Amino acid sequence: MPVIEFLAVCTKLKLEMLELLRTKHQLPQEALDWLNEVVEYNCSGGKLNRGISVVHCRRRDSFYLMQLQAFFLVADDIMDDSITRRGRPCWFRKPNVKMIAINDAFLLEAFVFQILKKHFRSEPFYLDLVETFHDVIFHTEIGQLLDLTSQPLDKEVDLDRFTVERYRQIVINKTAYYTFYLSAACAMFLNGVVDEASHDLAKNICVQIGEYFQVQDDFLDCYGDEKVIGKVGTDIQDNKCSWLVVQALDRASPEQRNMLKENYGRSDPEAIAVVKELYNELDLATVYHRYEDETYKALSQEIAQVTMMPSEVFSLLVGRIFKRTK
Amino acid sequence: MPVIEFLAVCTKLKLEMLELLRTKHQLPQEALDWLNEVVEYNCSGGKLNRGISVVHCRRRDSFYLMQLQAFFLVADDIMDDSITRRGRPCWFRKPNVKMIAINDAFLLEAFVFQILKKHFRSEPFYLDLVETFHDVIFHTEIGQLLDLTSQPLDKEVDLDRFTVERYRQIVINKTAYYTFYLSAACAMFLNGVVDEASHDLAKNICVQIGEYFQVQDDFLDCYGDEKVIGKVGTDIQDNKCSWLVVQALDRASPEQRNMLKENYGRSDPEAIAVVKELYNELDLATVYHRYEDETYKALSQEIAQVTMMPSEVFSLLVGRIFKRTK
Repeated sequence: MPVIEFLAVCTKLKLEMLELLRTKHQLPQEALDWLNEVVEYNCSGGKLNRGISVVHCRRRDSFYLMQLQAFFLVADDIMDDSITRRGRPCWFRKPNVKMIAINDAFLLEAFVFQILKKHFRSEPFYLDLVETFHDVIFHTEIGQLLDLTSQPLDKEVDLDRFTVERYRQIVINKTAYYTFYLSAACAMFLNGVVDEASHDLAKNICVQIGEYFQVQDDFLDCYGDEKVIGKVGTDIQDNKCSWLVVQALDRASPEQRNMLKENYGRSDPEAIAVVKELYNELDLATVYHRYEDETYKALSQEIAQVTMMPSEVFSLLVGRIFKRTK
Repeated sequence: MPVIEFLAVCTKLKLEMLELLRTKHQLPQEALDWLNEVVEYNCSGGKLNRGISVVHCRRRDSFYLMQLQAFFLVADDIMDDSITRRGRPCWFRKPNVKMIAINDAFLLEAFVFQILKKHFRSEPFYLDLVETFHDVIFHTEIGQLLDLTSQPLDKEVDLDRFTVERYRQIVINKTAYYTFYLSAACAMFLNGVVDEASHDLAKNICVQIGEYFQVQDDFLDCYGDEKVIGKVGTDIQDNKCSWLVVQALDRASPEQRNMLKENYGRSDPEAIAVVKELYNELDLATVYHRYEDETYKALSQEIAQVTMMPSEVFSLLVGRIFKRTK
């Protein structure tokens, strides 16, 4: 796993970007320093799953995936009112940043397209690549919308929107596209796989991997080890459409459903404890482990049947996240 | 001025977008209702300068400019912690919206590229058009960065960064590109003007118009009529790098500079009154009216010399904003 090489590529592309801003756009030093810190703070650390999966295929030109993730995460943290990310305060929590973080998120997104232009403009797949990024960003934002509007802010808690179907729609759009399909699509373009059928097949597999990945995330938010994950889970108090609450609602008796309704989405520790207790009663940890094993098996079989293109990248992704604890 | 036709186009494109989201993306009704309101609330009203200047050239397909402006304004209002926009509460001020507005801003941006794709994908200028949008968005965000970092949040007021040069750099990037160059560039592409020299010339003129436009905005923030503008000016208390403070600093005695330093960027009414008093002492209204006349004259002469392409759109723009009061 070439983590060091990957980080070297990131540094190189960051410097390229800053150089462009210094020469072509004539930014003053304090603005360059600012952007340097935006990138350093938000594009390093983390699990590097996404970036490395592309690097695996071609080491150069992979910074944009980190940037894109950073763009989503910086913005998501503000919208979710999060406290920490990767064991440090979220970017917008810094006293000299605050709402400037919104523009920083936009800039990280814009960097992606500037880098794509600089490195790929003469490639025959350039337009497809740009449109893939547009589409993936669009899906992610639709997913975020579905997530944020699954609970109206100005009404009392209403768990009726937390269905298995809504959950799938949220995670496929919000997470699967950018976390898995995008890196696969980039790898495919870089390796000359440009036909629509191959991309549709990759999309279909990646969307399933992404759903699996998000289910893990939701599980770890409650059952994971804070020290390992590097953040404090807040899905219950944040009233999130989490896999756990969706599964709980799917299995709950009318009394249990009422108990959830009364305690979910509240920040006092007692209410949180009631919800966690209910998850334990419904034995959601076992439900999760069964789901994990079944999904791993089904995905491996599906990937084994791919003949249209090399499928190692998919096996690699699934292998990397199977039974992850962070 | 075909305002009604323009609004009809906007409605048509909004419905197209919602239809795509309903059929291809299978969004549930409450998400469609949400987006309908995002667009209705943020893409109507206002002065319509930008949209109409494109409509003037070709009536269809101009919704994206409104969307793009809406995208910037929704986000800017959060970053500036603004209260009202166009005489109504800012979108993020609505109790059921709040930080969801960040994602809404991202979505408005994404709509732009989805609409460009749907309407122009087969045109020979499609890639240039998309890249023009990327570049303009990038400039705008750089401008916002320069603006936001012209005053460090965590230090005391430091007026040394409020120079004439910094001011120009902020407004050209933050306002001129998207407000004036983008609509001109779109009009040019739609009329078959695609060569780089023409676009560079248009960019040069538009950047000057944009600077003029922003100077007006800054002047009106302090000297305009709230009821006409539809918002309450807050540049002084927000510590903004406004044309007025830049001009004041350029003319201030050491004592006056000290007085500015002590009172600028503070929200108590007395401090605001001291700054306004100082603006009056330095007779900035006269300075402004002289600037306005000179700029109008210089721009008109420059536009009259354009032979490379039709120049009516520029005269039209300048004519529309000359001596504006809102």
